[in-house]
Amino acid sequence: MSLWQSIADQLRGEIARGKWPPGMRLPPEAELAARFGVNRHTVRHATRVLADEGLLYSRRGAGVFVAAAPVDYPLSDRVRFHRNIELSGKIPGRSIDTIMTRPAGHAEAEALDLDPGAPVHVAEGISLVDFKPVALFRTIYPAELVPDLPAALRSENSVTRALQVCGVDDYQRITTRISARIADAVQAGKLQLEPGDPLLRTEGLSQWRGKMVERALTWWAAERVTLTLPHLPS
Amino acid sequence: MSLWQSIADQLRGEIARGKWPPGMRLPPEAELAARFGVNRHTVRHATRVLADEGLLYSRRGAGVFVAAAPVDYPLSDRVRFHRNIELSGKIPGRSIDTIMTRPAGHAEAEALDLDPGAPVHVAEGISLVDFKPVALFRTIYPAELVPDLPAALRSENSVTRALQVCGVDDYQRITTRISARIADAVQAGKLQLEPGDPLLRTEGLSQWRGKMVERALTWWAAERVTLTLPHLPS
Repeated sequence: MSLWQSIADQLRGEIARGKWPPGMRLPPEAELAARFGVNRHTVRHATRVLADEGLLYSRRGAGVFVAAAPVDYPLSDRVRFHRNIELSGKIPGRSIDTIMTRPAGHAEAEALDLDPGAPVHVAEGISLVDFKPVALFRTIYPAELVPDLPAALRSENSVTRALQVCGVDDYQRITTRISARIADAVQAGKLQLEPGDPLLRTEGLSQWRGKMVERALTWWAAERVTLTLPHLPS
Repeated sequence: MSLWQSIADQLRGEIARGKWPPGMRLPPEAELAARFGVNRHTVRHATRVLADEGLLYSRRGAGVFVAAAPVDYPLSDRVRFHRNIELSGKIPGRSIDTIMTRPAGHAEAEALDLDPGAPVHVAEGISLVDFKPVALFRTIYPAELVPDLPAALRSENSVTRALQVCGVDDYQRITTRISARIADAVQAGKLQLEPGDPLLRTEGLSQWRGKMVERALTWWAAERVTLTLPHLPS
């Protein structure tokens, strides 16, 4: 076994036993190098391997931190936040910051197949898992299709249920686009991250009876959530 | 139309007409505010909307830049880099930095269903689209299952073809996990990015005749690639 491998194994064991809990900063490279009696290059090799395994992550200019085991979030044909999180044995939550009706922006009108400036309902807020923020969302709906949605969003505790109240019972995700961004100060504040931390960004479009019913933008705290894609054998 | 909307529309038009080409830094907020005769808050609102649309992106401490239209990369049951890129009318390329055979690491053995330390073939390199780097990859194969793969990887210009030469003709992606990271100095150098820029990280596991045949880690330059998920109506 090579030196870096034995150091990686030792650190992996210490993380598993809770010596380094999630969120804790690992000692600086020089300190670890002194402890293991190796050079910094060897320590860096070991921590990079653990980062590849998802056990550690870097924060720019601040060092290497122990990652909490991220929640797996399956991207399926019927994406339902509440049910997905419940299935993983955790407690889903949602805090809505804003519900408003306004004219559709350029990209919104295009995504929802509306005339520019057509009225849309917009809900913005924070998704929680076990009372911890995991994502920011902005969901947009054609106001003409679901006129009473704002009231339903205020009274129901999930978007799925609010749409059901408005008669939309079987909407279907038709496309998902996935990219990555870094958190700005506002996003970091809401997600309890640092500015510059990585975010997964998803854009989902859903249809109901052949009409575009929802555009959902979500910015996921990448250190807390892994998106998963189950493939069906063809 | 609100002030920020009209500014967003104007900037959108200027980007479309090539006044601000991809990669160019937008003038500072104060300068744009002076030009449009509004305050910086209004300018920020407009640029944030354009960032949401994917036309602009922020670089920490360096300002706001014009994004090139990213390549769409479909994550399907049969993920084939070369074919996917060709289908989008672009030129795929691959530059392999390293091919080696070594004992499997902890996470690798687990993913490939091997005993710890079993020999694996590892290929590392850079994926190109139109001669520009879009991703770093590290693919890992059980050496016993495909003993002659290293030679095939050297002679064939795609992993798919190299596996075919070894008799693996119909391998199947069984799971994909998607997360985000920030680029470190090494990754940024290889991808022609800045350290701290966001990366999409995918881990794909593939099977062939009921055995794990490949673990593929890919770090995508998020400003150049959007992963897409086509949903089948159920």
